[in-house]
Amino acid sequence: MIELKNKIESINTLDKKVLGEAQIKVDSLAKPLGSLGKLEEIATQIAGITGKINNVIHKKCTIVMAADNGVVEEGVSSTPQDVTAIQTINMLNGLTGISVLSKQVSADIRVIDMGIKVDLEHPRLMVKKVMYGTDNFAKGPAMSRVHAIKAIHIGIETVKRLVDEGYNLLGTGEMGIGNTSTSSAVLMALMGCHEDIAVGKGGGLTDEALENKKRVIRKAIDFNQPNPNDPIDVLAKVGGLDIAGLVGCFIGAAYYRVPIVIDGFISAAAALLAYHLNPVTKDYMIPSHYSLEPGYKSMMDAMGLKPILHMNMRLGEGTGCPLAFNIIESALAMMNNMATFESAQIDTDYLVDIRL
Amino acid sequence: MIELKNKIESINTLDKKVLGEAQIKVDSLAKPLGSLGKLEEIATQIAGITGKINNVIHKKCTIVMAADNGVVEEGVSSTPQDVTAIQTINMLNGLTGISVLSKQVSADIRVIDMGIKVDLEHPRLMVKKVMYGTDNFAKGPAMSRVHAIKAIHIGIETVKRLVDEGYNLLGTGEMGIGNTSTSSAVLMALMGCHEDIAVGKGGGLTDEALENKKRVIRKAIDFNQPNPNDPIDVLAKVGGLDIAGLVGCFIGAAYYRVPIVIDGFISAAAALLAYHLNPVTKDYMIPSHYSLEPGYKSMMDAMGLKPILHMNMRLGEGTGCPLAFNIIESALAMMNNMATFESAQIDTDYLVDIRL
Repeated sequence: MIELKNKIESINTLDKKVLGEAQIKVDSLAKPLGSLGKLEEIATQIAGITGKINNVIHKKCTIVMAADNGVVEEGVSSTPQDVTAIQTINMLNGLTGISVLSKQVSADIRVIDMGIKVDLEHPRLMVKKVMYGTDNFAKGPAMSRVHAIKAIHIGIETVKRLVDEGYNLLGTGEMGIGNTSTSSAVLMALMGCHEDIAVGKGGGLTDEALENKKRVIRKAIDFNQPNPNDPIDVLAKVGGLDIAGLVGCFIGAAYYRVPIVIDGFISAAAALLAYHLNPVTKDYMIPSHYSLEPGYKSMMDAMGLKPILHMNMRLGEGTGCPLAFNIIESALAMMNNMATFESAQIDTDYLVDIRL
Repeated sequence: MIELKNKIESINTLDKKVLGEAQIKVDSLAKPLGSLGKLEEIATQIAGITGKINNVIHKKCTIVMAADNGVVEEGVSSTPQDVTAIQTINMLNGLTGISVLSKQVSADIRVIDMGIKVDLEHPRLMVKKVMYGTDNFAKGPAMSRVHAIKAIHIGIETVKRLVDEGYNLLGTGEMGIGNTSTSSAVLMALMGCHEDIAVGKGGGLTDEALENKKRVIRKAIDFNQPNPNDPIDVLAKVGGLDIAGLVGCFIGAAYYRVPIVIDGFISAAAALLAYHLNPVTKDYMIPSHYSLEPGYKSMMDAMGLKPILHMNMRLGEGTGCPLAFNIIESALAMMNNMATFESAQIDTDYLVDIRL
């Protein structure tokens, strides 16, 4: 815990000097002030992260944390638990949504077995199993505090390894049947949200099964009493190993100063936990798409983040990341290649700043 | 007019049989039903357009219609009129927003002088000048009906040429100081919107200048009395040559069966006119980003379209199109390359359909 505490506390804010210089550069580009909106914000944010005004993405990768969740025993998911293992292998074989969308934008994926219930072998699967699936949080904590911290460290180390390999844009994804339940539980435990706001149908539930899911999560929180002021307690008691690994990714991205994209609901739950551990982690995050899972909005609102894509998606896996990667690279292209008013030979006397 | 009327009336609906087959294919992909949202809708829509379930984009291009607007005499824009000509040349030289963002996604641009006030020469500029800028619509119609129809035909022919050259994904953009005024006027004239809803600050106006812009447009509509049931009358009296050319692009895209992306406010005004000429044109349109210009929302609502990108952008030029192109290609990659439940070896008995 001391090592983790040190990492979390030594996260630095964005480089304010470079942020200011990047803003001046953006405002010198030949367009009405602020008229490229989020492209301007993203390019400026990345400048503040890297300390350089002009940036190019060399290698990009979505980290997919895969794990099983004991709470599926309670009937919170319609999907059979073995789909976690099946889709983890399909993912590595290029067959799932994240695989196909990543290939389309020349992005890589790194799939990590954080705690799938069975032993899997694949040449590209990174096996870092903390447990063979979490325990059923309806009957006790999902995992011990020690296991939660171990899983967070795996996430941090994964980011370090990717940065060492030359990746300079990361994304977050997951594979784990039952992980909308753990994510809803994290949201409710951290923020005190009601289950009607925090719990949705995930991959697909009947109205009746949704009511059961709400009941199971509410009872588990009442039973486990996670401490809302202790994010690691929340994570251990009602979270999952995939979420824990992703918490580590967000901490690692901020610690090693690399931009990291949030996919959907589960990734956002991990982002929210990281934000509660140290709010500065938010400055390194870029939200991608507005998940249809209802609790997602509360998470984004809590962090003051606004996703750029409205795709009505709710698949997870990290599928929002490759879609956002391209927009991010477009933002950097704007910064690097657009003409300035001076080079475009346009006077700036007329400019009226209508930004809020 | 007879030739145009024939083209508009001979637009066909999407291929219903292929739409149905495409939906079956999408639902066979290994993911919760409907969970890739807009990616599924776009892939299905394009199947209905081309008549093929699997599609690949070979060449993509944003058509940029450039023209001057006489109404700038009334002080409706803070930007000097000569910026239309300057930025048209900068665009062709790869320096503006649309140039840089297009290059980033390997898309082309085709820039057409529909009515810039001065004569320009550039090896890649297509000169199709209908007038040397429209007349000031505060004092009479912006153009004659004959000129409006001529401009629409240029748009249709541009689409035909691009399709002949092998382009199978198009976008719409424009360059023309004063064209948020013409677009607001089109919206107000067609839909009866109030100026407080339809008129915004464009590239940048003081609060005082915005009030003047509203007054000018309201008075011009009262004076010219465009017929809301005759979109070409609206276009001729209070539109612009860039908008007219883009109306032709939307008609041409539907006629020649190619998907066409709507950029921001000005492109949406043209899309709305095309939709009023024949609502089936909408089935060939894909909206890109949610423009910050306030009237944009009314236009999208009128057509029942929902943009996929929320970027707080308001630059125009077509800048939303290259951002959307990549998402569209991702949608097609999903359709072409994701595993089916069968090939992924996943049972489908558990699937619950929670789509609305």
